[in-house]
Amino acid sequence: MGPLLKNGKGLILAYDQGIEHGPSKDFNEKNIDPSYIVDIAERGGFTGLVFQKGIAENYYRGKVPLILKLNGRTSLPGGEPISRQVCSVKQAVDLGAKAVGYTIYAGSTYEHEMLAEFGRIQEEAHRVGLPVLAWVYPRGAAVKDDTSREIVSYAARIGLEAGADAVKIKYTGDKESFAWAVKAAGKAKVFMSGGPKAPTDEGFLTQVRGVMEAGATGIAVGRNMWQNQDPFKMAFELRKIIFNE
Amino acid sequence: MGPLLKNGKGLILAYDQGIEHGPSKDFNEKNIDPSYIVDIAERGGFTGLVFQKGIAENYYRGKVPLILKLNGRTSLPGGEPISRQVCSVKQAVDLGAKAVGYTIYAGSTYEHEMLAEFGRIQEEAHRVGLPVLAWVYPRGAAVKDDTSREIVSYAARIGLEAGADAVKIKYTGDKESFAWAVKAAGKAKVFMSGGPKAPTDEGFLTQVRGVMEAGATGIAVGRNMWQNQDPFKMAFELRKIIFNE
Amino acid sequence: MGPLLKNGKGLILAYDQGIEHGPSKDFNEKNIDPSYIVDIAERGGFTGLVFQKGIAENYYRGKVPLILKLNGRTSLPGGEPISRQVCSVKQAVDLGAKAVGYTIYAGSTYEHEMLAEFGRIQEEAHRVGLPVLAWVYPRGAAVKDDTSREIVSYAARIGLEAGADAVKIKYTGDKESFAWAVKAAGKAKVFMSGGPKAPTDEGFLTQVRGVMEAGATGIAVGRNMWQNQDPFKMAFELRKIIFNE
Amino acid sequence: MGPLLKNGKGLILAYDQGIEHGPSKDFNEKNIDPSYIVDIAERGGFTGLVFQKGIAENYYRGKVPLILKLNGRTSLPGGEPISRQVCSVKQAVDLGAKAVGYTIYAGSTYEHEMLAEFGRIQEEAHRVGLPVLAWVYPRGAAVKDDTSREIVSYAARIGLEAGADAVKIKYTGDKESFAWAVKAAGKAKVFMSGGPKAPTDEGFLTQVRGVMEAGATGIAVGRNMWQNQDPFKMAFELRKIIFNE
Amino acid sequence: MGPLLKNGKGLILAYDQGIEHGPSKDFNEKNIDPSYIVDIAERGGFTGLVFQKGIAENYYRGKVPLILKLNGRTSLPGGEPISRQVCSVKQAVDLGAKAVGYTIYAGSTYEHEMLAEFGRIQEEAHRVGLPVLAWVYPRGAAVKDDTSREIVSYAARIGLEAGADAVKIKYTGDKESFAWAVKAAGKAKVFMSGGPKAPTDEGFLTQVRGVMEAGATGIAVGRNMWQNQDPFKMAFELRKIIFNE
Repeated sequence: MGPLLKNGKGLILAYDQGIEHGPSKDFNEKNIDPSYIVDIAERGGFTGLVFQKGIAENYYRGKVPLILKLNGRTSLPGGEPISRQVCSVKQAVDLGAKAVGYTIYAGSTYEHEMLAEFGRIQEEAHRVGLPVLAWVYPRGAAVKDDTSREIVSYAARIGLEAGADAVKIKYTGDKESFAWAVKAAGKAKVFMSGGPKAPTDEGFLTQVRGVMEAGATGIAVGRNMWQNQDPFKMAFELRKIIFNE
Repeated sequence: MGPLLKNGKGLILAYDQGIEHGPSKDFNEKNIDPSYIVDIAERGGFTGLVFQKGIAENYYRGKVPLILKLNGRTSLPGGEPISRQVCSVKQAVDLGAKAVGYTIYAGSTYEHEMLAEFGRIQEEAHRVGLPVLAWVYPRGAAVKDDTSREIVSYAARIGLEAGADAVKIKYTGDKESFAWAVKAAGKAKVFMSGGPKAPTDEGFLTQVRGVMEAGATGIAVGRNMWQNQDPFKMAFELRKIIFNE
Repeated sequence: MGPLLKNGKGLILAYDQGIEHGPSKDFNEKNIDPSYIVDIAERGGFTGLVFQKGIAENYYRGKVPLILKLNGRTSLPGGEPISRQVCSVKQAVDLGAKAVGYTIYAGSTYEHEMLAEFGRIQEEAHRVGLPVLAWVYPRGAAVKDDTSREIVSYAARIGLEAGADAVKIKYTGDKESFAWAVKAAGKAKVFMSGGPKAPTDEGFLTQVRGVMEAGATGIAVGRNMWQNQDPFKMAFELRKIIFNE
Repeated sequence: MGPLLKNGKGLILAYDQGIEHGPSKDFNEKNIDPSYIVDIAERGGFTGLVFQKGIAENYYRGKVPLILKLNGRTSLPGGEPISRQVCSVKQAVDLGAKAVGYTIYAGSTYEHEMLAEFGRIQEEAHRVGLPVLAWVYPRGAAVKDDTSREIVSYAARIGLEAGADAVKIKYTGDKESFAWAVKAAGKAKVFMSGGPKAPTDEGFLTQVRGVMEAGATGIAVGRNMWQNQDPFKMAFELRKIIFNE
Repeated sequence: MGPLLKNGKGLILAYDQGIEHGPSKDFNEKNIDPSYIVDIAERGGFTGLVFQKGIAENYYRGKVPLILKLNGRTSLPGGEPISRQVCSVKQAVDLGAKAVGYTIYAGSTYEHEMLAEFGRIQEEAHRVGLPVLAWVYPRGAAVKDDTSREIVSYAARIGLEAGADAVKIKYTGDKESFAWAVKAAGKAKVFMSGGPKAPTDEGFLTQVRGVMEAGATGIAVGRNMWQNQDPFKMAFELRKIIFNE
């Protein structure tokens, strides 16, 4: 994870919402353009940038370490969630990736397919020296509350056991319970998933402070950054909290 | 996409309706013959011609760049739509293809199988230097209105994120909303799917003007061409709009 | 298709009913023996003989060109029909096959699996120079009338688009509608599937005359031959019609 | 099949009931031990011995030709029956097998998966010179009477068509109908499946006489041997009938 | 199994509960840390230690023989249980494993997928000289009582037949019935699965005495060890019983 961290901490810019949620739900005339996101990542001091391969092929400029997301789905189908590999580790390397990411919908009736696919990717990535980030999102009819202490810590532990170098999980809502999730992740680094745009900047920053005090390595933020009126100011505030700058 | 464009724009002739819809639905005594289609493509100034491998093996004459459609299905089965790969990238190359095409039924409960298969094809095609066109058609029980601004722009974005060089999508009905879809597609070129024969030629041409003004690269037209009484006149009109000839 | 034709026409003896229908339904003490079938094929002037690999391994004598049937199923399971590959192209070649055959149940909810498998077989067979015959039988809950003009011509077209060198389809009942199916098949050669034993020989021969006048290449006949009291007389009559002998 | 026959006939000892039925259903303190079975096979003059790979690895002593059973299932799951490959042909060879066996549940909604898997195994086994025995058991909701003349002869024919060198089928209950099944099997050798322990030894021997008079090659017996009070006497009686000793 | 035994007996520490049950169900502030588990294994005189690959990569120190668990699932999804391979045999070897483990949910409607996958793993592991441990847990709607004599002995036998070198099964509750399971396992070594923390230490030790007197090779214990107030005292007591120290 070295190249993706600064002083052992990380600030990652996520931008796979185009396929995961669709442009009309999350984008405006500005942030629909991946070049704008690359600008934010570069000028905002981010230590990692998450793209699907199509965005990487067309827009990546090589300055901020690329985390290539290897699976993806749309929000359109009903039923139990499943997201399958759409990009190989080899292609990620060719596109300049410094790490790969993969979403596991734990609790889905398709969970076993994703755990097995993640297992193959983890092995292949480690053989070529790439760190692996697991987005672990418990979801499906069997999962009732995906931000509870129990479920979030379970997500964190799945990442560790499955061999992820880092795990991206939701916030539990308070520092104490999130610290338990960080403990569950052990040596796997924990990144909080930013989630939807918070009502106020200060509210979001308070949350990030709690996350870092709970022992997390950093955050992976998307909408709270590129939906923000002044993303560079927000990035500045986040760097202060995360890197103690 | 170079070989498939003229001045950066494209006019593609689609002819996979034989398997997708069946001959009795779309064909007459004339256009049931693929040779007639090749004639239209050649004399009509088309920059691309879409065939399944069986048609290509038997009728393709090498003048208009071939776009080999790599998956296909019939309209017969009920249930959620799925279309699987029926031709390899290697076979497409051997048949003289200058590009490959693949349909993704986003929103289907089989969406993940098509996204994963498209991902493998995209990688293989790019390794041998072939552009990839994605027909992205949101469909299935979960998709209510497949020509809405939201759904069409989502389709366009899926193409970009999945690494398509071009995306073929339906028309939204007006220029403004289609421009949003073009924006969502980013650097992926947008082709409007011609759809069923329009009631009048002028109506269709007006639609095409809207599409081009919205920033599209061109159109992929089938029934509005080879079901037309005078396809060469229609091709002439389309070239005027698309290539500014 | 050269080795399987005489003057451009073909008379094929089909004998995969043992697995498709079971011996008690179609066989008697005589025709249950594959050697009897080989006799008919050799002395009856057939241009092709269809066997599953087990029959070919044990009974094929090399005189009449062998068409190895690569997939098969029994009539026992309920539900949507699916027939999967049970013999490789390589093994077919080793058994002396001059062509391979494969059944596609278009309209089945498993259609996509068969189209995809057929696609792989077609590519492999063509690479080693073997022609491919597609048995295209629309079937499953979604298919109402599998001898209608619309459905039979659709079947024929699927064969052409999928890259079959020849397609075996049911008779529509009249010459005019069958001619539309032949047209839909384009350069793919059309063989009528003989079907169950016709009530009278003359009735069957009249049907065959209609088929040939509609432009078909020939017929693939089984029960109407080896359930016939005098198969050699029937073969003689068929050769007159098909080869103009 | 040479090494598995004596004067063209065969007496096979089957012992895969441990996984197929479970030890508490079929075994006692004596026959639960595979060494006891090997003793019976060796001293009872058997021409073949059926084991799963785990039993073969630990107990096989090389005297009686080994038939390695390549698939297996337990009796625990409900629903349509499916049994998948658990041992490769290569591993069977390494364990000293002189033949391989595979169960096909014809009529199951999973039939196509087993027919396809059997097809691959048959090819691979024949390439390395191993004969293949098919256990063909019509089963599943669609199969009403699995010992009827129609169903048993269908099972026999499936074995022949699929390329089995020998087929193991149930007894129909009378010699005449079983002779029809033997005829359906053609050049594939027929072994009657012994089934559950018969009420009396004489009853079982009468059945075996009928089977052999019907033209079978032999029997594959398990419970009627190793659940017998005096298996060596039973083996002696069977050899008299089968080998005419 | 040599390296995993001492005087032919074994005491295995299991720690895959993090993924199988989740941290909040089984862990406290101490045992959530895999380093603590490694301490117990090393100082407690264990002859084997079970980890998922992620734990092994980050915490394994090489002293106690590593048993790498090759499949895993979470407790979150409903429906029939399935656990798929998440780590290759090759990767296990690279991580220093001296054996591999795999769970088979016999009785699940997915049983066939796990039996087939186990079969491939067993072959590959034996080729590189690694012993294979099978966790055989009958489970799913069709399994009523998974600690009955009948079901536990069935589980043991599945392990033997499938080629496992050792099988991990639940306790039946009494020595006599467990002895039947040990007999069913034949030359496959039997380890009792420790299960949830027993109400009293003495109760657990009594159970272990029964297991060993029934002929088992040892136990695989997790929660009864690392949830124990004094795991080293418990380990001392277990060693006395198992190794006769």
